[in-house]
Amino acid sequence: MLPAAILAAQTSKPLHWDLVAPGVWRCQIGAADRTSLTKTAEAKPKTDRLKAMPSSEIPFELQATRGWASSSYASIQLPLTPAEKVFGLGMQMSGANRRGQIFHLQVDHYEAGHDRLHVPTPLYISDRGYAVLFNTIRPVNVYVGVGNRLDDPKTPKFRDRNTDPNWDAQPDSSAVEASVQASGMEVLVFAGPTPMDALCRYNLYSGGGAMPPLWALGFWHRMKSLSTADEVKEEVRGFEQRKIPLDVIGLEPGWQSRSYPGTMEWSPERFPDPKAFVAGLKKQGVRVNLWENPYVAPGSNLFQALTPRFGSHTVWLGAAPDIADPKAAEIIRKFHHDNHVALGVSGYKIDEVDGFDVWLWPDHAQFPSGLDGLPMRQIYGMLWQRELDRMYHQENRRTFGFVRGSNGGASRFPFALYSDTYDHHQYLTALTTSPLAGVLWCAEIRSANSSEEWVRRMQSAVLSPIAQLNAWDSGKKPWSYPDVLETVREAMELRQTLVPYLYTAFAQYSMKGIPPIRPMCLVDGGLETDQYMLGDNLLVAPVASGEKTRKVRLPSGDWYDYKTGKHVGSHETVVVAPKLDEIPMYVRGGSAIPTYKPKLHVADFALQETYRLRCYGQGPWHGTIYDDDRETFFFEKGAYILAKVTVAGSEATAEKIEGNWPVLPGRMSVEKM
Amino acid sequence: MLPAAILAAQTSKPLHWDLVAPGVWRCQIGAADRTSLTKTAEAKPKTDRLKAMPSSEIPFELQATRGWASSSYASIQLPLTPAEKVFGLGMQMSGANRRGQIFHLQVDHYEAGHDRLHVPTPLYISDRGYAVLFNTIRPVNVYVGVGNRLDDPKTPKFRDRNTDPNWDAQPDSSAVEASVQASGMEVLVFAGPTPMDALCRYNLYSGGGAMPPLWALGFWHRMKSLSTADEVKEEVRGFEQRKIPLDVIGLEPGWQSRSYPGTMEWSPERFPDPKAFVAGLKKQGVRVNLWENPYVAPGSNLFQALTPRFGSHTVWLGAAPDIADPKAAEIIRKFHHDNHVALGVSGYKIDEVDGFDVWLWPDHAQFPSGLDGLPMRQIYGMLWQRELDRMYHQENRRTFGFVRGSNGGASRFPFALYSDTYDHHQYLTALTTSPLAGVLWCAEIRSANSSEEWVRRMQSAVLSPIAQLNAWDSGKKPWSYPDVLETVREAMELRQTLVPYLYTAFAQYSMKGIPPIRPMCLVDGGLETDQYMLGDNLLVAPVASGEKTRKVRLPSGDWYDYKTGKHVGSHETVVVAPKLDEIPMYVRGGSAIPTYKPKLHVADFALQETYRLRCYGQGPWHGTIYDDDRETFFFEKGAYILAKVTVAGSEATAEKIEGNWPVLPGRMSVEKM
Repeated sequence: MLPAAILAAQTSKPLHWDLVAPGVWRCQIGAADRTSLTKTAEAKPKTDRLKAMPSSEIPFELQATRGWASSSYASIQLPLTPAEKVFGLGMQMSGANRRGQIFHLQVDHYEAGHDRLHVPTPLYISDRGYAVLFNTIRPVNVYVGVGNRLDDPKTPKFRDRNTDPNWDAQPDSSAVEASVQASGMEVLVFAGPTPMDALCRYNLYSGGGAMPPLWALGFWHRMKSLSTADEVKEEVRGFEQRKIPLDVIGLEPGWQSRSYPGTMEWSPERFPDPKAFVAGLKKQGVRVNLWENPYVAPGSNLFQALTPRFGSHTVWLGAAPDIADPKAAEIIRKFHHDNHVALGVSGYKIDEVDGFDVWLWPDHAQFPSGLDGLPMRQIYGMLWQRELDRMYHQENRRTFGFVRGSNGGASRFPFALYSDTYDHHQYLTALTTSPLAGVLWCAEIRSANSSEEWVRRMQSAVLSPIAQLNAWDSGKKPWSYPDVLETVREAMELRQTLVPYLYTAFAQYSMKGIPPIRPMCLVDGGLETDQYMLGDNLLVAPVASGEKTRKVRLPSGDWYDYKTGKHVGSHETVVVAPKLDEIPMYVRGGSAIPTYKPKLHVADFALQETYRLRCYGQGPWHGTIYDDDRETFFFEKGAYILAKVTVAGSEATAEKIEGNWPVLPGRMSVEKM
Repeated sequence: MLPAAILAAQTSKPLHWDLVAPGVWRCQIGAADRTSLTKTAEAKPKTDRLKAMPSSEIPFELQATRGWASSSYASIQLPLTPAEKVFGLGMQMSGANRRGQIFHLQVDHYEAGHDRLHVPTPLYISDRGYAVLFNTIRPVNVYVGVGNRLDDPKTPKFRDRNTDPNWDAQPDSSAVEASVQASGMEVLVFAGPTPMDALCRYNLYSGGGAMPPLWALGFWHRMKSLSTADEVKEEVRGFEQRKIPLDVIGLEPGWQSRSYPGTMEWSPERFPDPKAFVAGLKKQGVRVNLWENPYVAPGSNLFQALTPRFGSHTVWLGAAPDIADPKAAEIIRKFHHDNHVALGVSGYKIDEVDGFDVWLWPDHAQFPSGLDGLPMRQIYGMLWQRELDRMYHQENRRTFGFVRGSNGGASRFPFALYSDTYDHHQYLTALTTSPLAGVLWCAEIRSANSSEEWVRRMQSAVLSPIAQLNAWDSGKKPWSYPDVLETVREAMELRQTLVPYLYTAFAQYSMKGIPPIRPMCLVDGGLETDQYMLGDNLLVAPVASGEKTRKVRLPSGDWYDYKTGKHVGSHETVVVAPKLDEIPMYVRGGSAIPTYKPKLHVADFALQETYRLRCYGQGPWHGTIYDDDRETFFFEKGAYILAKVTVAGSEATAEKIEGNWPVLPGRMSVEKM
């Protein structure tokens, strides 16, 4: 036992925890900071949804936890049991279990990893069924089962390295410690009972997952950067002629009159009549998405309007708007509304809000609203999402887009993450770890070294939250590899087929906090990062380019091949050797998967479109369908339907679970597989 | 021009600079921090030496510099001219010019690099002939020609990436900006006139370079960790029998009764009579150096004595002494004195004061003296050096040892740096960049995959500040590769031969701040990191293992092969193909290099030992010789001689430059090469 003097010097009082929402406890260490992640995100907890969850306790004594606040740091210690696994801590690109590692979580572009991430959400989820959010806009240091306090009775006994072969260079610890260099930190703990429940509580506390418009679930194609309006129209004709699905055209920097730094105004040379251009595409069932990064060209109209609401330092010699300033945010919204949204622009791709250090402002940069450069960088991508979301909300039009940096509390923002990494395995890992950071990742395609790679990447993309070909640099088109055009079209049609299933999965994200992509660690504790559940009933195990075979771990229950309906196994690991036109995708026995007959544009799907219920294994078959007007926010007022679908024999029936719409707008047909 | 509102918001007042020593200016941004690097090092500027330097101004207007202090950051902006090069910023392991890069300088073990370094001294040296020290114990962010302020009239005009092929992803900036997350920061600027002069001023302001005892310049051999006293004696006999030089035996963790965490007490099994052991070796001309890391085994005598003066967190489950607490420091000094130094132990190797994160305490750890974990980690290695140096000073016995972490202001501490990296090119880079961080690096040998590698590493080691074989893990001995034993012995004898030349070079470090290893960037602006000047007149270009040829850039003047005396070139780059027993080492024409006839122990060199002056090129030849009693600190009171040596014809004469000793204790003989 240690002398009392050490104990007195180093022991803090137990922390005080408040229940702030059903199954959500809050604790403040030290003094309150100027803002937090959830405050920045303007999170409005879905309290009724939280209340409806199974009640649960935290599996340790909250009141026994300890915290410290020194002149420079606020820190907390939370317990770990010996075998406990810890998931999350940002949109990581490798591995699942974070135990035994240290993280200094900071927003950055791709190169550094581990500590510096596009989305460094300081949230961890324990396999014992709870989650913890360090709710601060500062970089957080997290020590996951690393480090033992001298005064802690649980600190293990030391060994003699000279003589003891069991000496360990990194002794285990029975705690997570976390700290920020700030006056204080808020900590939130989310109950389960299961790890997935804990994540759902986090998402619901953040306002629920984003609900996209239906068209966002179709196929996206980004043009080469300097494309003109005529070239876009010609490319769209190319899709039509080849009968290839297309829903969104993304324009890259060249749409602006100047960029890097940008004017955020249409180039008069390349887009002489933007209003007609956007309207023309819309008529063809194609939306327009605009690339932007936030750095404003001096002398431009937006620069004039925003002056002096800029950070102290330039980015690519442009000015960085202080979007944390409400007046600046209002100017930005109005500018985007008047110049783009009023013309019909459907959304944005917000680039370079993350890093690198050499691109962005220094840590000590100052923004007039009072934030320093480092915390501003932690939330800059989130602030842009917040304001663009607010703008579309004011229009009562849903949007969906892309952003390259985000953080905790951002679940409700309709943006998918992307990056400049391009390793196929990293892509799949990001796909499965992104929901643990409260975001979604787009495994987009850009180019390929072979037809085989092109197909495999396309197959991964169409089973991502957003399916996108990003040809800004390569100029590639879906038909760029003619020998595999049929296979590529098949993958793209699969995407269109699954739209009603995906829409329902997104609705579950919005209503229940369950992400459409579900990592195995939350499904059943598996540590695989290269397979995942897509919605309730599809298990997806994409084949990375270059691979001929792969392992698939089938959870409990019976699993059937999506395409053939054949039984593939039950609670076992199988090795599959998919041909190039085959995607390892398996359906839970007893499921009815709602699908549509594919069309070229999601916009062509009528509200009364017939649901084709694909039924696998033994009946009766069950499924879930969500629908609403697909475009507005009236669903938030109850204008939607969530229904349970049952197929018995060849008869399909729908039973309303909730919502103010009549039972299912569309008819149902049954396809037994 | 920007609106006045931006200028008002973002412009700070010019900074106030004070002349604090000849050619040294100081500026305080924000509030004073609790301590600084030079305060921690207890630097006593050698004012007289600084005064004796050529007077010089800073080549920009100090009073026009700007600084900022926000609630969280203190920062400064200093100018750069377009072609200016910047050297230093820690003991880096690659490259020379730091311009266009960003550094977040923090103490760490080897893996991360760039930002995290064994010695992250926040000192840069401009090729325009001045140096800047960010004199803070916090991690420093340094933006070297990266980032432009919006309000800066020197910020370049932006380009349009859409259309301008000269668009640059990283626009140059005409400034260095640096910041700390703290209430304030002290900045010191050192005048030249040359870049080397600027480094000398930094070293002299830090108290001058460390002056080793003469024996430290001989050959060091570290034993395998669990060696017993008898095994050490046998190994020493092995050196004697093979006529291989040996001056210091290093004992690794196994000398302690327990280690990791350690007792810092002798193992009664392996070292039953440490006093006799140390004395016995001393009689044979061999000193003993003890490995330690600072982490104390609970229950040990030192633990009892230090309680409760420990940090909050364990390291390898041992307690981390709060050595910043004067009482703890006194206990540590007394313990080391009584248990080791009183027995004749010559010095220490202080391990693991640097990292990794998973080994050391967390950033938010607390030390009773008031320091948080992160700043404590920045200076922990320096504090251990300071206290051990103080202890030996109190004994009036010089020491020399090793340490794995250090920082700015530490020039005067008698410790060389080392690490666990082992890449031969990195070794050579560390050798040449370490002086830019105010420290010296030991390119020790540990093992080799071939006899060739063994020889090449040995040749690099003997031309390092300290020449060491570190066999703690491999158990290797100089004769482990019998086929190259003669070549190895030749390299080791070269080392003994050069002892008087090296001693003089170290004296110049102590008296004038000129490091014994001189990077080319300070010699003549060269960017090579694989060749260097050793003292005034030797150019060394070690051959890395596996290489058959290499380039050597010869500065202006005539250069002669050290061994053969042959002329090799003048102000040109030559390609050499050294045989295995050849080291590319060249002597400036007109030099007289003071050497000794090699002996097995430096202790065997008498004070009256004859200097053999090796003369190269055309006469008359000149050289410098320093000497003193080689063991004590009486030289600090004037008991030394610094003499200019001239050889004309076959006659050598010595003329005293300074010191209270009679002109040269030893005779001189002349060897014309």
